[in-house]
Amino acid sequence: MFTPFNTFLETIAGDRQLSRWLTRLPADLEAFLKSAEGQEFRRYEKILERTRSLHADTLNLNQPYVSFGRGEDITPGQHQMLRALYREMMPWRKGPYEFFGEKAESEWRSFMKWDRLIKGITPLAGRKILDVGCGNGYHMWRMLGEGAERVVGIDPCALFTAQFELFKRAVPEDIQKKIHLLPLGIEQLPQLEAFDTVFSMGVLYHRRSAVDHLMQLQSQLVPGGELVLETMVIEGDEQTVLIPKDRYAKMPNIWYIPSISSLENLLNRCGYINVKLIDVCMTTTEEQRRTELMITESLEDFLDPQDHTRTIEGYQAPTRAVFTAQKKGR
Amino acid sequence: MFTPFNTFLETIAGDRQLSRWLTRLPADLEAFLKSAEGQEFRRYEKILERTRSLHADTLNLNQPYVSFGRGEDITPGQHQMLRALYREMMPWRKGPYEFFGEKAESEWRSFMKWDRLIKGITPLAGRKILDVGCGNGYHMWRMLGEGAERVVGIDPCALFTAQFELFKRAVPEDIQKKIHLLPLGIEQLPQLEAFDTVFSMGVLYHRRSAVDHLMQLQSQLVPGGELVLETMVIEGDEQTVLIPKDRYAKMPNIWYIPSISSLENLLNRCGYINVKLIDVCMTTTEEQRRTELMITESLEDFLDPQDHTRTIEGYQAPTRAVFTAQKKGR
Amino acid sequence: MFTPFNTFLETIAGDRQLSRWLTRLPADLEAFLKSAEGQEFRRYEKILERTRSLHADTLNLNQPYVSFGRGEDITPGQHQMLRALYREMMPWRKGPYEFFGEKAESEWRSFMKWDRLIKGITPLAGRKILDVGCGNGYHMWRMLGEGAERVVGIDPCALFTAQFELFKRAVPEDIQKKIHLLPLGIEQLPQLEAFDTVFSMGVLYHRRSAVDHLMQLQSQLVPGGELVLETMVIEGDEQTVLIPKDRYAKMPNIWYIPSISSLENLLNRCGYINVKLIDVCMTTTEEQRRTELMITESLEDFLDPQDHTRTIEGYQAPTRAVFTAQKKGR
Amino acid sequence: MFTPFNTFLETIAGDRQLSRWLTRLPADLEAFLKSAEGQEFRRYEKILERTRSLHADTLNLNQPYVSFGRGEDITPGQHQMLRALYREMMPWRKGPYEFFGEKAESEWRSFMKWDRLIKGITPLAGRKILDVGCGNGYHMWRMLGEGAERVVGIDPCALFTAQFELFKRAVPEDIQKKIHLLPLGIEQLPQLEAFDTVFSMGVLYHRRSAVDHLMQLQSQLVPGGELVLETMVIEGDEQTVLIPKDRYAKMPNIWYIPSISSLENLLNRCGYINVKLIDVCMTTTEEQRRTELMITESLEDFLDPQDHTRTIEGYQAPTRAVFTAQKKGR
Repeated sequence: MFTPFNTFLETIAGDRQLSRWLTRLPADLEAFLKSAEGQEFRRYEKILERTRSLHADTLNLNQPYVSFGRGEDITPGQHQMLRALYREMMPWRKGPYEFFGEKAESEWRSFMKWDRLIKGITPLAGRKILDVGCGNGYHMWRMLGEGAERVVGIDPCALFTAQFELFKRAVPEDIQKKIHLLPLGIEQLPQLEAFDTVFSMGVLYHRRSAVDHLMQLQSQLVPGGELVLETMVIEGDEQTVLIPKDRYAKMPNIWYIPSISSLENLLNRCGYINVKLIDVCMTTTEEQRRTELMITESLEDFLDPQDHTRTIEGYQAPTRAVFTAQKKGR
Repeated sequence: MFTPFNTFLETIAGDRQLSRWLTRLPADLEAFLKSAEGQEFRRYEKILERTRSLHADTLNLNQPYVSFGRGEDITPGQHQMLRALYREMMPWRKGPYEFFGEKAESEWRSFMKWDRLIKGITPLAGRKILDVGCGNGYHMWRMLGEGAERVVGIDPCALFTAQFELFKRAVPEDIQKKIHLLPLGIEQLPQLEAFDTVFSMGVLYHRRSAVDHLMQLQSQLVPGGELVLETMVIEGDEQTVLIPKDRYAKMPNIWYIPSISSLENLLNRCGYINVKLIDVCMTTTEEQRRTELMITESLEDFLDPQDHTRTIEGYQAPTRAVFTAQKKGR
Repeated sequence: MFTPFNTFLETIAGDRQLSRWLTRLPADLEAFLKSAEGQEFRRYEKILERTRSLHADTLNLNQPYVSFGRGEDITPGQHQMLRALYREMMPWRKGPYEFFGEKAESEWRSFMKWDRLIKGITPLAGRKILDVGCGNGYHMWRMLGEGAERVVGIDPCALFTAQFELFKRAVPEDIQKKIHLLPLGIEQLPQLEAFDTVFSMGVLYHRRSAVDHLMQLQSQLVPGGELVLETMVIEGDEQTVLIPKDRYAKMPNIWYIPSISSLENLLNRCGYINVKLIDVCMTTTEEQRRTELMITESLEDFLDPQDHTRTIEGYQAPTRAVFTAQKKGR
Repeated sequence: MFTPFNTFLETIAGDRQLSRWLTRLPADLEAFLKSAEGQEFRRYEKILERTRSLHADTLNLNQPYVSFGRGEDITPGQHQMLRALYREMMPWRKGPYEFFGEKAESEWRSFMKWDRLIKGITPLAGRKILDVGCGNGYHMWRMLGEGAERVVGIDPCALFTAQFELFKRAVPEDIQKKIHLLPLGIEQLPQLEAFDTVFSMGVLYHRRSAVDHLMQLQSQLVPGGELVLETMVIEGDEQTVLIPKDRYAKMPNIWYIPSISSLENLLNRCGYINVKLIDVCMTTTEEQRRTELMITESLEDFLDPQDHTRTIEGYQAPTRAVFTAQKKGR
């Protein structure tokens, strides 16, 4: 009844720390599957059945194109089927992927963000990881590529869960057991204190309450665990926070763009220690752009055509910073 | 079983708009009465029984000392009893009151705030009012004095509820029906859309999420209704928000002190219209100070002894602003 | 939002004993109104709007035809409207009624049951009464006629609630406050211990658990209160209980037909005292029969055409007994 | 947090049919562990720690003494420890057991009941089994001895769960995965439709509602599955049911003792097919008696000293019947 999430339920049932999640996860999954979004997911699952016979023996999770299987493993008809399937599962926000040789070019070249942060964070080998707002899971595969012991991602969007399942169902069973994407929002997580590293990338500015978000992330970490926080920032001092009057870069739901020092201050106030800025970077149209699999507006359309350092509303153009911070140990 | 809140439950049961509250208020009151805080309330109610025979025929709700009854209405023994009772129900934060001639001097001279705001807001005569974080209800009596049709206050503190009940139980029954203090937090209010004016005074800086608070207040207003918002502000531009690193004026739970224009911006972003600043004022030790009925530290101890424009932590000293804003009409 | 049940909610909010019902009744009413049955009720309420201008000044609640208003109070057009409305609100199980002179002939001549029991029970004057499985409320009006202080009936059927409302909305307001029919099943009642007399007539044989039903009824009574229990019985000794193999008198949902002494034994076992049999009577086709307002099968069709002492399945024909029993006092 | 029930939670998470139980089992287990009964269980678990080093390589589940390990596997000190532990975990209702040579003589010689029924039921090899009201699990071990694929028992009593865990923790891990006792009542089971055989032995007469119990059992069976029902019966025809006026054989909570044909009738009415009586037997003082590990009253004290065919209250002495019945197939 919880397909395809039974394996994850088994995993947490057998885990001392994660098992407390059982008091609400099954009900949340049931609610999802009964919701309109869940119906959408079931519809995508129908589409995924076409790929049931595909098994990817070769994986490469350590390069820009996260890739599964080789082109020569499948027939020309299957190649055609995959290309059509990509289009039926549009838009592709995060990527790029290569699945049996068929490339999926996504709006974001997500490896650029990954390359900027991977040197600055605690190595992931052997760690249990949570990725909040994981999209279709691109970075989750990269985490596995770094040797993570287990990667759990959450994102409430049915399409992203389905895009993730496309690849997951093709990989060997031992790998399937290590990587799980659940269609949930962060407010659905109890205080698990079960993850060595928690990622929150591209989420904070959408939240109405920055404090609550940072607290919720903290409650997922083991004592001494590491937060990796990526979000948009503006210039300014410790007391500077931009709350857009209306839209920001055409997005209607942006509530919080702090300065770097304001956010550092808030992380400290929320109880984190060893707060470090590991990267700041203005987003470019090389990193975020329209593709054949994401055909609506992208960054270029969100910026002032005369001045790419400004959004179309006149705010400072998106600049993204990555922080690490540590939860206090026991 | 809900004593002393049965009358209020009757009131909302008979009100088209407020009756939707019945799906959760009885359970919330039951939970309160069973909680430790509720036990505390029952303990205070025992104390209140001593005043059961007191009936105040004369009220004066339009002067600094909100007063009930006259000194000559009660015996010298009762005068002595009241003075002892005041001390058993310390601390008195809001006031002052005069109850059968016995004055209760509170930490705050709350009439000073009232006098600053009353000229700037829509007259209260005939309106239904909600006061969020109402303390012991001083301003609620003043609202009634202005001719409000019904005043509902919420504050989760048992002591404040009991201080309010001390006076309420002595007033005539027709007045009792118009004024109600419930031991609740704002997160326990469903979307009522039932009040013409909603007051939130001295609450916003304690909230982890300013946006959620402003949204919750809005959902209590009828279309076109008025918010009266009082909170601490600092100097700065539209992007200025102070989040204290730790304590502010020795208070551990201050999360949000915006500049005036930053808060105006946020009110607009949250959908309010006609946002107006009606008063700004630095709090003085004349307004907030230690008294015989509030014997712990007060404002004087929170400020830099050398420089009363600074808190003891070095922040700008408390400056309070009052805004009005309107919910959009239909 | 709870229309037409707000008045009852007000009533219980102001009642020490009944107010505990507030922790679930509003939610139950909300659930009813959102259910398919509730939609049905709203549909009937539309029909009832036609009678909005009718006000019955004269009531006669102490005769076989429970009657409201006089024929001469309304116009010929209104008479016609009422006759049509009766037909739109078929079937009429309980009655008969006379509403502004228009007679509603129901399947049951319910006064015959009333006449058999009224002499045997504790007089109802001044009592608070609950009628479980009250149908359209015929007996509730008779209870009011006997001087009951307040009558509450429950029956989950939307049609019966609507038939009741037809009459209730026409009576003077002071009477409306005394009589309430709620669309609920008995399992939705918390332990109220609030009623002086509880009626359960024609319900017990439908219950899967006789013990639970008798216990639930007991938990509605004040200590020392009286149960009036009417149900079908068969001949036999203290250990005789008929559980029909399938249908009984064509009814599919009959689970429990005990002998008189078996039921007396059960009442005692459940903790009742002073158990008394006050009437036994074989149901006749004079009492229960097809009418113009109940046009499907009735008793005659349920009996063996050759032998009216047998049901069509060969069981003993319906014999009904009335018991009174008392809840222990404190 | 659910120790020692995590393994079972894993089991159901991975089972298509049982996984629906996840929407309530974790919450029920959490509630149990927080309850007084759960505290009692934790206290017994402390005692069980003494046996942590015991591993039983040899099991014999097909003889009257269900036995684990051999006497020579443990030291004289451990023998002494076990004997003391038996006494600390009194009373022993079901058995007998032999644990590393130490015999636990229980009130019931439970193999006698087993021997009477095992020939009459569908062979258990390869079946998934539920035992409702399983006591300390004696019959569950016998079911495993018959080759059952998985055995789940429920009984709300902490002591019985602990007695079961004493043995379970000593057996090899692959066997541990097949047998599970949960501290639950039957009303806590959702409709699982997951078991090939469901046992209810010695439970029905304690239930207030025989119909609800039989329905609940049915909803646990797969279509075509088998119910094995053992309960007390009296002599009489299809309409005979004894409801004791007060106690029966000194037991205060006996609600339902039907005749054989009355119970057969009820099973049919509840939708079972192929109802068969496979054994009837008056309980003897050889089968149920006081032992050193059950030192309070037993059957002998419950019977009329002059006439062992009567209980001390004068009812027919306990006679027990075993029925099998089948749930309809699809």
